Amino acid sequence: MDGYTLTHKTPSRKDFIDTADFDQSEIKDIITTSRTVRDYIKGGGWLNALFHKSLGMIFEQKSTRTRVSFEVAMEQLGGHALNLAPGAIQLGKHETINDTAKVLGRMCDLIMSRVDRHESIKALAEFAKVPVINGMSDRCHPTQGIGDMITIVDNLPEKPMNEIKVVFVGDATQVCNTLCDMTTKMGMNFVHYGPENHKIDEEWLEIGRKNVEKYGGSVAWSDDPECLKGADFIYTDVWYGLYDKETPKEVYMADFYPKYQVNDELMASTGNPNCKFLHCLPASRNEEVTDSVLDGPNSLAWDEAENRLTAQRGLVLYFSGVAQATLDYIKQQKEAN
Amino acid sequence: MDGYTLTHKTPSRKDFIDTADFDQSEIKDIITTSRTVRDYIKGGGWLNALFHKSLGMIFEQKSTRTRVSFEVAMEQLGGHALNLAPGAIQLGKHETINDTAKVLGRMCDLIMSRVDRHESIKALAEFAKVPVINGMSDRCHPTQGIGDMITIVDNLPEKPMNEIKVVFVGDATQVCNTLCDMTTKMGMNFVHYGPENHKIDEEWLEIGRKNVEKYGGSVAWSDDPECLKGADFIYTDVWYGLYDKETPKEVYMADFYPKYQVNDELMASTGNPNCKFLHCLPASRNEEVTDSVLDGPNSLAWDEAENRLTAQRGLVLYFSGVAQATLDYIKQQKEAN
Amino acid sequence: MDGYTLTHKTPSRKDFIDTADFDQSEIKDIITTSRTVRDYIKGGGWLNALFHKSLGMIFEQKSTRTRVSFEVAMEQLGGHALNLAPGAIQLGKHETINDTAKVLGRMCDLIMSRVDRHESIKALAEFAKVPVINGMSDRCHPTQGIGDMITIVDNLPEKPMNEIKVVFVGDATQVCNTLCDMTTKMGMNFVHYGPENHKIDEEWLEIGRKNVEKYGGSVAWSDDPECLKGADFIYTDVWYGLYDKETPKEVYMADFYPKYQVNDELMASTGNPNCKFLHCLPASRNEEVTDSVLDGPNSLAWDEAENRLTAQRGLVLYFSGVAQATLDYIKQQKEAN
Repeated sequence: MDGYTLTHKTPSRKDFIDTADFDQSEIKDIITTSRTVRDYIKGGGWLNALFHKSLGMIFEQKSTRTRVSFEVAMEQLGGHALNLAPGAIQLGKHETINDTAKVLGRMCDLIMSRVDRHESIKALAEFAKVPVINGMSDRCHPTQGIGDMITIVDNLPEKPMNEIKVVFVGDATQVCNTLCDMTTKMGMNFVHYGPENHKIDEEWLEIGRKNVEKYGGSVAWSDDPECLKGADFIYTDVWYGLYDKETPKEVYMADFYPKYQVNDELMASTGNPNCKFLHCLPASRNEEVTDSVLDGPNSLAWDEAENRLTAQRGLVLYFSGVAQATLDYIKQQKEAN
Repeated sequence: MDGYTLTHKTPSRKDFIDTADFDQSEIKDIITTSRTVRDYIKGGGWLNALFHKSLGMIFEQKSTRTRVSFEVAMEQLGGHALNLAPGAIQLGKHETINDTAKVLGRMCDLIMSRVDRHESIKALAEFAKVPVINGMSDRCHPTQGIGDMITIVDNLPEKPMNEIKVVFVGDATQVCNTLCDMTTKMGMNFVHYGPENHKIDEEWLEIGRKNVEKYGGSVAWSDDPECLKGADFIYTDVWYGLYDKETPKEVYMADFYPKYQVNDELMASTGNPNCKFLHCLPASRNEEVTDSVLDGPNSLAWDEAENRLTAQRGLVLYFSGVAQATLDYIKQQKEAN
Repeated sequence: MDGYTLTHKTPSRKDFIDTADFDQSEIKDIITTSRTVRDYIKGGGWLNALFHKSLGMIFEQKSTRTRVSFEVAMEQLGGHALNLAPGAIQLGKHETINDTAKVLGRMCDLIMSRVDRHESIKALAEFAKVPVINGMSDRCHPTQGIGDMITIVDNLPEKPMNEIKVVFVGDATQVCNTLCDMTTKMGMNFVHYGPENHKIDEEWLEIGRKNVEKYGGSVAWSDDPECLKGADFIYTDVWYGLYDKETPKEVYMADFYPKYQVNDELMASTGNPNCKFLHCLPASRNEEVTDSVLDGPNSLAWDEAENRLTAQRGLVLYFSGVAQATLDYIKQQKEAN
C-alpha cells in the first residue's frame, strides 16, 4: 500500500449500501483514497475531481455530522451537495420512493440518503441510475464505519492486525453492527460488550464469523467485564436509540447504568494504559461516557468526527469512479514539487 | 435554427412570469439555448457562464423537481442557488413582499420563486431589480412549460407542426394552462380533455385562440373521448389539486375516475401506436395514470423530468442576458475540436 | 487610508463576537477591506480568496438578510456556506454546544451563528478551533454594525467626524447597542432617543463613554425631541422585540407611538434637510417608520441592506486572515489594467 495504487480501478458495485457488501481489498481501497486525499488537502493541495458535480442528500432524519461532512467534502472537490432536509422530500408520500429515485438520478450525479428504513435506501439504489450512498439506515451506518476505520488505522499500535482488539460497549446500534463487520474484515478481534437484551444481532455475528474465517481475528458478544481485558480501542454510542423512537431515560439507565458506562474505571480494566476511546457522537455526557474519558488524553472522538469528512471525500470519489485518477493526479503533483 | 443563433440577443422583458408574455420567436430562443447547452454538457463540456452568480430561490410551497433542477443548473454553470425553504422567508409576514424583493434584488443576481398566489410573483418582479423567474404560481407553470416543449421537440413525429396534436387529460392545472399556450404558440393542435367542472379557463382558451390566429393549429376543450383520436402526445397531471388545498380523494375520484385515467385503453383510443405519454410528476400511480403507461415504452416522463434541468439552464442563461454569448462560446469550442 | 493597506495584517482575536472587543484601527481595517472588495467586485472583478472554504451557518432564529448575505459572500469569494437552519442543529439538545462547536470546527473553515443567547456564541467561539462570527445574539448585532458603518462612511457629510451626529430612535435593540459602540468608536456623536423604559443599557452607554474619551464625540440617551436637532443620520428598528418573544402590539404602540415614529415631521425636526434615514430591516411600515420616509429620497435603507453583503465579504476575509493578501491582489490587478 503506497497510498496511490488501488486494487479496484472502478467500484465492484454502483452503490455503497452496507460495508458487508464489499470485500477487504475494496474497503482498503476506499480507506486509501480517503487518507491520501486528506493528507493532500491538509497539506494545502486542492482538487476539482468532482467539478460541477452534484450530490443530492435526502434526509429522513436530522443529521449534523453526516450532512456537514458530505457538503464540505463535495465543496472541497469542486462540486456541490443539495440538502433535501427532513420533510423537504417525503419519500413515499405524494410520490413513490422509486419514482423519486428515478427523477433525482436524472438530475444529480450522486445520491446520499439517511433513511428511516433500510428498504428505502435499497429502493433508491435500485431505481436511481447514479451511485447511492447509505448515510445511515436502521440496519447499519457504513459511512461512519469508513471514518472509524480510518481513525483506527491512523492510531494502530505496533502489532499485527490479528492481535488488535476493539470492544464496542453498550447498545448494539447500527454503528456497532457496521463496526463488527469492519473490524473483522480487517482481521481484528471484535467484542460487543453489552446486556443480553441489547445484544448484537446474530446476523451480524455471522457476518463477523465469515470475515474471521477469511481474514483471521475473532468475533464475540459478552456481558462479562473480563472481555475488556487487552482492548486497544473502546467504542461506545448513546443508549437512547433512534431519535424518532427514543427509549425513556429510566428504561435505558436501568439496562446500561452503571455497568456499561465508559468511565476511568472501565478504561483501566482493559489493563492497557494506551487504550484509545472512540465515540461516533453526539454523546450524552456522563451517561454512556464520562467527561473524563471523552475529554481525556486517550479520546479520539474529535479526530473521528473530522474523519467523517475524510471518509466522505473518499467515498464520493470512489463511487464516482475517479478515485484512481485522483490518486494519480496527487502523485504527479507531489513528484512535480 | 442552427442551434447557435438567437433572434433575441437580450430578453424582451426582465422577468419570466408567464409564457403568454412572450412571442414564438423568444420561446424558441429559450428552447434553443436549453437544448444546445444540454447537448454540450452531456458531451462532457463545461461552462462558467454564471461564475459566482447567485440565484435566490423562494419557496412558499414544497418542491422537489423545481428546486433540485434550478440548484443543479446553477452549479453546472459555475454559480450557486440559495434555497429559501417554505417558512424560511415568510413573504408578507414581518416584511412586505415588496421590501423582501427589494432586499434580495440587492444581494442576488437572479430570483426564482414558487408562490401561493400569482400576485406574489408579480410583486417580486416589480420590486426586485434583478430578473425574477416564476417557479409556479396558482395561475401557470412556465418553467415546466419550457421543459415540456423541449421534450416534445426532442420527440417530434415527422410531420408539419400544424398537424401535431397534444391532448391534456384530466384536471386543468397550471401545467395544463401553460401547455395550452406553449403548444398553440408553436402552431400545434391542443385539446383539454376533461370534465366540464374542471374545464380549462376561458382566459387560457382565448390565449390559445390568439396563438392559433398567428401561428395556425387549433385549440379546444372537450369531454368527448373522440377528441383523443390522432393524438401524438397525451399529457396528464394529478387530480388532487394544490398541496395546500387538496381535494378529498372521494371527490376527485368521482369527477375523473375511470373516464379520465390514462391507461392502455385510453392510449389505444388515440389510434396512434406511437403516441407518447407525458406527465409533469409526481404521479399518483393508478389514479390519473396506470403503471403500464407511466412505465411503458411510450412514456417520456423521465426524460421530461430531466428536461426540467435542461430548461432551467436555458432560462437562467437567457434571463441573465448571456445566452447568445454562451452559444457563441460553445460553437467556438466545437470548432476548435 | 488608501483602501489597500491595513493596520492589522492578521486579526487580534480569532472571533468576531462583539464590536466592543475591537479598537478603532481594527474596525477601520474591516471596513476598508469590505469597501475595497465591494468596489472591485462591482467593477466586474472576481476573487477566489476563499476557494473551497466552507462557512457553517447555525441559525437558532430565522434570518433573511444575514443568511443570504453570508451565503452570497462566500460564493463570490470562491467558497461555500452551509445553512444549518433553526431545528437542523439543536444547540444544547442531544449534544452540548461545546461538543457541536468542536465537531463543526473540525469540518468547517469558519462558523457564523445567530443565537438566542449571547452565552451560546461565546461557547461556540471557545470550543471551535476556527473563527466564529456572531450573526446576532440577544446582546448585540456586530455584522449589522459593520454594514451600517460602511453605509454611513459612504454617505458622510463634509465635516469632521466629531461633528457628525447619529440618532437612534425607538427601542434599544441589539442594533442600537452595536451602533452606540460603532459610532462613538469612530468619534461621532451618538444619541439614543427613546422612552425611559426602553432606554439603552448603562453598560452600552459606558462602552460609548470610553470610546468618547479616546476618540472624541459624545454619547447620550434622551427622551427629549430636542436631541434630534442637527442629526446627520436617523436610525430606527422595529418595536416588537425578538421574534420568539414579541411584545403585543397594543403594548409597544402605547410605549412608542406616535412620539417615536420616524415620519416626515420627525425628520424635519432635525433641521437638516439632508439628514439620512437608516433601518436595519425588516420594517413594520407605518409603525416605527412611515412609507414616506422609508421610500423617500433620504432613505439609505436599501443601500444598507446591500451593505450587509459588503460587510460579510470583508468579515470572512478578515477573520480568515487573508484580507491584506486580497487587497494586495486587487491593487496588483488594478495596476496591471
